[in-house]
Amino acid sequence: MTQARETVSFRPGEVILYPGTPGPRDRVYRVLEGLVRLEAVDEEGNALTLRLVRPGGFFGEEALFGQERGYFAEAVTEVVLEALPRELAPEELRALAQHLAQALSEAYRRIERLATQRLKNRMAAALLELAETPLAREEEGKLVLHATHDELAAAVGSVRETVTKVIGELVREGYIRSGYGKILLKNLEGLKALAQSRG
Amino acid sequence: MTQARETVSFRPGEVILYPGTPGPRDRVYRVLEGLVRLEAVDEEGNALTLRLVRPGGFFGEEALFGQERGYFAEAVTEVVLEALPRELAPEELRALAQHLAQALSEAYRRIERLATQRLKNRMAAALLELAETPLAREEEGKLVLHATHDELAAAVGSVRETVTKVIGELVREGYIRSGYGKILLKNLEGLKALAQSRG
Repeated sequence: MTQARETVSFRPGEVILYPGTPGPRDRVYRVLEGLVRLEAVDEEGNALTLRLVRPGGFFGEEALFGQERGYFAEAVTEVVLEALPRELAPEELRALAQHLAQALSEAYRRIERLATQRLKNRMAAALLELAETPLAREEEGKLVLHATHDELAAAVGSVRETVTKVIGELVREGYIRSGYGKILLKNLEGLKALAQSRG
Repeated sequence: MTQARETVSFRPGEVILYPGTPGPRDRVYRVLEGLVRLEAVDEEGNALTLRLVRPGGFFGEEALFGQERGYFAEAVTEVVLEALPRELAPEELRALAQHLAQALSEAYRRIERLATQRLKNRMAAALLELAETPLAREEEGKLVLHATHDELAAAVGSVRETVTKVIGELVREGYIRSGYGKILLKNLEGLKALAQSRG
């Protein structure tokens, strides 16, 4: 038996969900293609990335449970989503629970980093995480990350000015090379060591 | 139809789960009575509270999905747990997913606080969170929290020395009164305002 799947598409930069109380028509989404970023934005407009959702991952789970949504969901790339039915099948519930357990364990690692690591070490961890997304591409045998200093600030929970300083340090120390909206990851092993130490 | 539930009990301070790879006999637990604390401990022995699990809540979800466990689970009070079967019924899966979604949204709030708030404001938020657990008791019409400065440090992601300084500030400013292993919450409204501002 084949069931029609309800899909929706978004262009890069489009907002998929806004913060607030989920309405009766709100759904849980599964990412089929592309990358979705969940982010909190404070009164001063500073963004903080909470979760990157890749194909197979879910978001909008608060619609299922009547919880308040504290984030914007934004399409980072071209995105195709499946809008799940209001009543999830057991295998969908299980996949959702697994995704949430994984996201929770990543959030706890972020909390540990924020509580104990210096910004430079957290930045190394963030660069490596972004390197696993469609924002990173192999160019002439090198891994190049397409991200602005604003996006990096959102990823580590800081502001652009401070991020620019730390990126400068990482460049001087030979970990990365930096161009306009691009970061070339020169020394992956070094970045991994940095990401694991306290600083 | 009545099914026998498999329950286990722990005394205050007992470790229920250790960090590491879940084994084939590991289970997901539902708290029936008491309070469980999940915490990460770094090489220097500093603890960081990741989640407080109250009756109705779950932990040990990594056993279900073969994920690495990054935390210790410890009984804070006398605790009675239900060890869930390896195959969860749909209503248990749904309750687990709901608990994880709630825990994730709390973890994101923690990340926002850590990225943007001063320690004093985070401490106000932590005191209010602990006030919702069995660690808080009404004593002669006042809300008294039974927690050491080490436990408060673990709750906010700091160390005891710094916490002692911040607690001193909150005492001087009339928000709390502090005794041996006890904090009396004098000004709940003031603490709420502090917890919501950036500092």
